[in-house]
Amino acid sequence: MDVAVIGLGLIGGSLAQALAAAGHRVLGFDADPATRGTARTAAARAPQQARWQVAGRLRDVVGQAELIVLAVPLPALPGVLAELAGFDGMVTDVTSVKGPVRELVRQHLRVPAYVGGHPMAGKETSGFAAADPGLFAGCAWVLCLEPQETALPGWLAMARLVTSLGARAVPATAAEHDRAVAAASHVPHLLAAALTTAVADDPLAAALAAGSFRDGTRVAATRPELIAAMCGGNAAAVGPALDGVLKTLTDLRAALDGPDPTGALRPLLAPSSAARAAWPAAAGTAVELPWQVDALLDLGRAGGWVTGVDDGRRVVHAVRPETVGGRT
Amino acid sequence: MDVAVIGLGLIGGSLAQALAAAGHRVLGFDADPATRGTARTAAARAPQQARWQVAGRLRDVVGQAELIVLAVPLPALPGVLAELAGFDGMVTDVTSVKGPVRELVRQHLRVPAYVGGHPMAGKETSGFAAADPGLFAGCAWVLCLEPQETALPGWLAMARLVTSLGARAVPATAAEHDRAVAAASHVPHLLAAALTTAVADDPLAAALAAGSFRDGTRVAATRPELIAAMCGGNAAAVGPALDGVLKTLTDLRAALDGPDPTGALRPLLAPSSAARAAWPAAAGTAVELPWQVDALLDLGRAGGWVTGVDDGRRVVHAVRPETVGGRT
Repeated sequence: MDVAVIGLGLIGGSLAQALAAAGHRVLGFDADPATRGTARTAAARAPQQARWQVAGRLRDVVGQAELIVLAVPLPALPGVLAELAGFDGMVTDVTSVKGPVRELVRQHLRVPAYVGGHPMAGKETSGFAAADPGLFAGCAWVLCLEPQETALPGWLAMARLVTSLGARAVPATAAEHDRAVAAASHVPHLLAAALTTAVADDPLAAALAAGSFRDGTRVAATRPELIAAMCGGNAAAVGPALDGVLKTLTDLRAALDGPDPTGALRPLLAPSSAARAAWPAAAGTAVELPWQVDALLDLGRAGGWVTGVDDGRRVVHAVRPETVGGRT
Repeated sequence: MDVAVIGLGLIGGSLAQALAAAGHRVLGFDADPATRGTARTAAARAPQQARWQVAGRLRDVVGQAELIVLAVPLPALPGVLAELAGFDGMVTDVTSVKGPVRELVRQHLRVPAYVGGHPMAGKETSGFAAADPGLFAGCAWVLCLEPQETALPGWLAMARLVTSLGARAVPATAAEHDRAVAAASHVPHLLAAALTTAVADDPLAAALAAGSFRDGTRVAATRPELIAAMCGGNAAAVGPALDGVLKTLTDLRAALDGPDPTGALRPLLAPSSAARAAWPAAAGTAVELPWQVDALLDLGRAGGWVTGVDDGRRVVHAVRPETVGGRT
């Protein structure tokens, strides 16, 4: 497959290397000349069968690509999309919010096969220097599937591609993805910030803080502009998710005021204790699903993922977790 | 020193072993015959200079003790205190809440030298089988100091004792301790429970959850009755601490509704990011303090701790952190 990767940071750089190693023809581009130079050197030094190219101009990579991967930060997307006007191949992206990107693509392109993507892979480090072709092995890679919008053949092509890199292809609508990452990834950063604030002005508390504080606040040390961009970029989903957490905390708060706080708290805490003890899901069942949008979306909603696409029998191979969130 | 340790679980068992190894005469007791048997065998097998004894009856340990350490769970304290009627030596405890214990002691005993204690040491495991004489090395050990109540000589004796085990003696009033652990240890368990709840009913979110969820919810898997007893037993302090967190989260929630969520969140998140990056305090300054209640309490409020007691010069050796919670 001819793949153009636009943006050669941690994700884009890792993806270019992984795709080239998987036998695809990869042409990369980055707006930063220094990054292009570093990437070009690395691409030329790769083993013969994993060589790839780095273009000097954006329009050069668009020409013969069958698939364009947008691996630039959200703020850079409109500018890049504007340069892709007229491209009629497949387009995907790797940004961490999917609803807003879906809107941007609609405004700038008329593509039959845009499949929003989000590989749940990351590192403490960033930039091409941290690129790693093995970054996606075993990671969940959300591929957006919109009923009456996404072309299923395009989605299946993306599923073939990401599963060939060892990733788990997770079907979800953009709205479902944004709701899920708001609860699973964005709200945790806000809770960590609030917990840190509760101790920051109390040196005695900071001196007595131990494991529960250390782990509960770890991500609060993330650069504030990154947490703000992540949560702000998904504000429509983070707001309701945070409302749910506030509701739970308000119920716990009320239990503390009763005549028997310990007795009132116990039943409120039992379900979350069981759910956390059962996370992550220990085992999954291998299943085969037809090439149908509804069947794929149901799989994603059940916490499952696609492991491969069988063209001969026109099914996908998938895994459905046996227990999720403590429930069977 | 003749020390009686009542309750031979993880903390009591570790303390009996640590005190014996430090050269004190230790007589232990546990209400559970099986625990007494296990402890007696372990005590007899200890190296000659670290031998200690296990008594068969509670009243036998009280007799010649200069110090009684109450290492039983909070619910068992009233019964044990009732049996100590008439004892006029020093009494301390190791329970994780100090205001309620202070009240219990007042009701049952007239001791001039009760010094509430809380070693911030723990393990995943519990019971005498998990006892470890090195458990207290480097840990913060709060020793309660109440103006116009605690006898300073008794407090200094306890400071000598716990610092001789390698612990950091942290001076604080019972109220200050309970407020600090509410924010640093109890509220984190409630936030972890609420965050788990937000994902427990969404299998897709559970499947996409990664590091920030894993760390932010780790302690939610604690047995619910333990979290309930911990938070319920300190409800008077946990309530206000949770109110503070709810206030911060409500401000963050409001920022998400504005026209520029990212821009509104950034300044709200900057202080906690700096505070968490500066925690734990990297360095401390060695200081000497007079034997004065106010000087010791000020040290604790500044996040400092006592490392030793100098009888010749009538000062305590202490460490005052240079930065706490991100502020110098």
